[in-house]
Amino acid sequence: MSRKIIIVGGVAAGPKVAAKVMRNCPEDQVTVIERGEFLSYAGCGLPYYVSGVVKEQKELMSTPVGTVRDAAFFQKVKNFTVRNHTEATAINREEKSLTIKSETGEEELPYDKLILCTGASPVIPPIPGRELHGVYKLHGVEDAEGIKAVLAEKKALNCVVVGGGLIGVEMTESLVAMGCRVTMVEMLDNILPILDSEMAVLTEQHMEAKGVKVMTGTRVEAIEGEGKVEKVITSAGEIPADMVIVSIGVRPNVSLATDAGLDIGDTGAILVNGKMQTSDDDIYAAGDCVETINIVTGKGCFVPLGSTANKQGRVVANNVCGIPDTYPGIVGSSVCKVFDFNVARTGLTEKQALAEGYEVEFCLAPAPDKPHFMPSAKPLFLKLIADKKTRKLLGAQAVGLGEADKRINVAAMALHCGMDIDEFAQVDLCYAPPYSPAMDNIIAAANVMRNKLNGFMQGLKPDTVKEWVETGKDFTFLDVRSPAEYEQIHINGTLHIPLGAVRTKLDSIPRGKPVVAFCKISLRGYEAALMLKAAGYEDVYVMDGGVLMWQGEKVVG
Amino acid sequence: MSRKIIIVGGVAAGPKVAAKVMRNCPEDQVTVIERGEFLSYAGCGLPYYVSGVVKEQKELMSTPVGTVRDAAFFQKVKNFTVRNHTEATAINREEKSLTIKSETGEEELPYDKLILCTGASPVIPPIPGRELHGVYKLHGVEDAEGIKAVLAEKKALNCVVVGGGLIGVEMTESLVAMGCRVTMVEMLDNILPILDSEMAVLTEQHMEAKGVKVMTGTRVEAIEGEGKVEKVITSAGEIPADMVIVSIGVRPNVSLATDAGLDIGDTGAILVNGKMQTSDDDIYAAGDCVETINIVTGKGCFVPLGSTANKQGRVVANNVCGIPDTYPGIVGSSVCKVFDFNVARTGLTEKQALAEGYEVEFCLAPAPDKPHFMPSAKPLFLKLIADKKTRKLLGAQAVGLGEADKRINVAAMALHCGMDIDEFAQVDLCYAPPYSPAMDNIIAAANVMRNKLNGFMQGLKPDTVKEWVETGKDFTFLDVRSPAEYEQIHINGTLHIPLGAVRTKLDSIPRGKPVVAFCKISLRGYEAALMLKAAGYEDVYVMDGGVLMWQGEKVVG
Repeated sequence: MSRKIIIVGGVAAGPKVAAKVMRNCPEDQVTVIERGEFLSYAGCGLPYYVSGVVKEQKELMSTPVGTVRDAAFFQKVKNFTVRNHTEATAINREEKSLTIKSETGEEELPYDKLILCTGASPVIPPIPGRELHGVYKLHGVEDAEGIKAVLAEKKALNCVVVGGGLIGVEMTESLVAMGCRVTMVEMLDNILPILDSEMAVLTEQHMEAKGVKVMTGTRVEAIEGEGKVEKVITSAGEIPADMVIVSIGVRPNVSLATDAGLDIGDTGAILVNGKMQTSDDDIYAAGDCVETINIVTGKGCFVPLGSTANKQGRVVANNVCGIPDTYPGIVGSSVCKVFDFNVARTGLTEKQALAEGYEVEFCLAPAPDKPHFMPSAKPLFLKLIADKKTRKLLGAQAVGLGEADKRINVAAMALHCGMDIDEFAQVDLCYAPPYSPAMDNIIAAANVMRNKLNGFMQGLKPDTVKEWVETGKDFTFLDVRSPAEYEQIHINGTLHIPLGAVRTKLDSIPRGKPVVAFCKISLRGYEAALMLKAAGYEDVYVMDGGVLMWQGEKVVG
Repeated sequence: MSRKIIIVGGVAAGPKVAAKVMRNCPEDQVTVIERGEFLSYAGCGLPYYVSGVVKEQKELMSTPVGTVRDAAFFQKVKNFTVRNHTEATAINREEKSLTIKSETGEEELPYDKLILCTGASPVIPPIPGRELHGVYKLHGVEDAEGIKAVLAEKKALNCVVVGGGLIGVEMTESLVAMGCRVTMVEMLDNILPILDSEMAVLTEQHMEAKGVKVMTGTRVEAIEGEGKVEKVITSAGEIPADMVIVSIGVRPNVSLATDAGLDIGDTGAILVNGKMQTSDDDIYAAGDCVETINIVTGKGCFVPLGSTANKQGRVVANNVCGIPDTYPGIVGSSVCKVFDFNVARTGLTEKQALAEGYEVEFCLAPAPDKPHFMPSAKPLFLKLIADKKTRKLLGAQAVGLGEADKRINVAAMALHCGMDIDEFAQVDLCYAPPYSPAMDNIIAAANVMRNKLNGFMQGLKPDTVKEWVETGKDFTFLDVRSPAEYEQIHINGTLHIPLGAVRTKLDSIPRGKPVVAFCKISLRGYEAALMLKAAGYEDVYVMDGGVLMWQGEKVVG
């Protein structure tokens, strides 16, 4: 009854499938084919190896008790065979065999089940000079070692990170930690496309505060230097550079699948069903090479992540062994550390939701992540996105010094369950002052959203209000914070009436034109708006997120 | 159209109802009746005020921008009236009026809607000597001030905390922080009844490591002293004491409701429907005085928490103003900080689940809360409880230095949605190395549970194995950790065969009697068990949680 199971790819999903198949069906013969040297290493840990947070390369490829996961380990402990430095070159579906090539020549391996865990490769754009010494990507142990070697040579290098995605941002932090001066160059208007622009801007500001130069809307035109990189030519000028890291994204490795005629999804990744089967029943695929379903939209997507690879690997192994298991897809959760900022999101951004055709409502809810009286409280900026029609949550974003991922995981669960905002606002989360406010930030945000969906609050983005100011629109810009807060910092051209005085000072708030009320975070702004509406004012708005989210000029002191 | 809304109780739910009613229906006349001096204070913050983490009492009763929430504030800003030092003595339901009593005499207030937010009061058992100076509860600002005054007199007091519940544990930490020697006396076998015993024991050990003497299974018989407390007499001997804190729980304040003939639930708290209406349609109730529904069991429960009070207050206000809103109940989430330990749980404990008649499966899953190569990784002990029949999650517990509440919030969401373990194991949570392992702890735990529910793993509690050892049962106690781990620490009487050698050393593992395999956390123990089963062994168990959860003797070095 011993079946031949062949797995192509030995980094993340591959070893997971192999180990789990051997646990499920110990009589099977499992072979993992790996092109490179290294197996089962934690690629996501590479930025932390570069910065020295992780001391030794070997820690990234060890078990929690320190055993290195090499071919011998897998054979002895997990009872499967690994052939590294071996490339899979073709699938012969009719004969059910895989052609492999290594130093010892070509070979044909018959399989009962074949699993493709071929991963993804970094996209390297055709920038002139990309081949210069000192230009790296960060995809694999070799890159990390190269970068570390350069860093070891001298301190305070000028580094240019091309691409403001997750890896670019993580690498930037690592390079700064190693004493480098870093410039991040991003072609789009904002870094971190996992976020909407108002949240991305907060992150950019934090990076700037940490000494990083963030150049958005900037295109890299060439990398120049004599033998090694010396400068980067961009659409916004030249940047001196001793090292360049290109991290503009990855592309699934699908040539083996394509050559074999397997179906490829619209995203360019391998198409699989819920069992992780490709269009050939005997061929499965998992990890960074497959397309998965976005549960929120029901559409295919390509979101390569280590967490997904592990779960998919398990589903493959179960199905290969006849244990029913289904991978439902993702909701789009991700998190990254950007210096002291925690940046997390799940579901759709507002931009994505609009592109998908939803009738979108949003809310911005900045607040301390614990009761204000706890010294450990830290600011956290939340944004929720909901569908006006169904009142369902569509997405959530959190950035700031506070605990972002804790809130976003809760929102991710709401997305998995298709919760509407009204249910979501009532969930029973852990509460004690060292952990969260009595109304957790995500619940407070859900309540702001309910107020909006119920028509009690008409929100305006700070950006929109800024546009009103700049275009000279005739409206009352009403600051209802306390005199002390106003003295500390305020926005020019506002009318300042502390909330407690609004009811008695209606005379000084003109009728017949729009009023935009705000405070620090716009909870009091909301209360002021309600007072005005109760007093017969008609065109009353709240500036979402208050002074904290205002990106225009502020008068300090 | 101005209605008279009267709210009894001004601490948590009361002011919430009042403020939200005024936002919803600004034309209403809202009056809050409060027996005490203080309004709208954060009772949950009191332990942190005692320890000095919160510097000033006033911070607990201020808005986030520092405005004290007194009667004047509520009148001016929120537009409702507060009458403190005023007691509500009777409800006249037929006339729809409330009798109140203050220094100025008795008065009859007519109402359109009445809301009871009468809270709960600490249970003070009839212990002789409970009236002595130096005996405190911790329920209100006055107690906190009394305790702080005693602490200010001298350092290194002997304190006895009676009752090992959430408040007792939080107070213990605060007292130790203030330099006191603390003994905790708990009548039951373990502290923290929110946890099952194996999780509570870990917390007790942590408290002991922090210098607290934890006396479980111990009854307080008397408090003795001349004028002020000097010692506590317990079933396990005398304890010298300069101060005693009694925190054995709270009881809902329902006399006003009972006298008016309103329905009371089985738990002794006021019975309300999903709209938070009592058995009188014009009388609502919210907060620590009401019974709520446990969503997991569908049964009534009494779980007074500030987070619940706030949400219920909002539901009352919406319904009072004709905005449909339903409070669904709780799932039983709570968290507390115990020195460096984070202790959280949701749903049912195993004990509760068994008492409810479920066919219970459990699993213990200790693991670092981040990838093992991240220096910021900290140990976290997880326990899941599931229903064998439906495979639904019933509860989760987490204790340790790692982030407990993050995982338990995710489990709470799964309970809200009635997720089964198979769905739960596939959820898309935020992943990056500074935050969690690629397979988050709660997902890894769910997979252990799936293995058990699928019959792949037969678990034994460390306690059960300990009993087997102590009663001389004939079985093989198989330690599959590495030689280095074994040298560092091991359990007497075990057979040590590292996992990698199990397949080749089957000869030394006797057949025909039970084998209990384990490792550090029992993942390798599980693999060993599978190897043995594949080799024809029949009676094979895994010791859940491994060495980390073993409470018996350990040989160090």
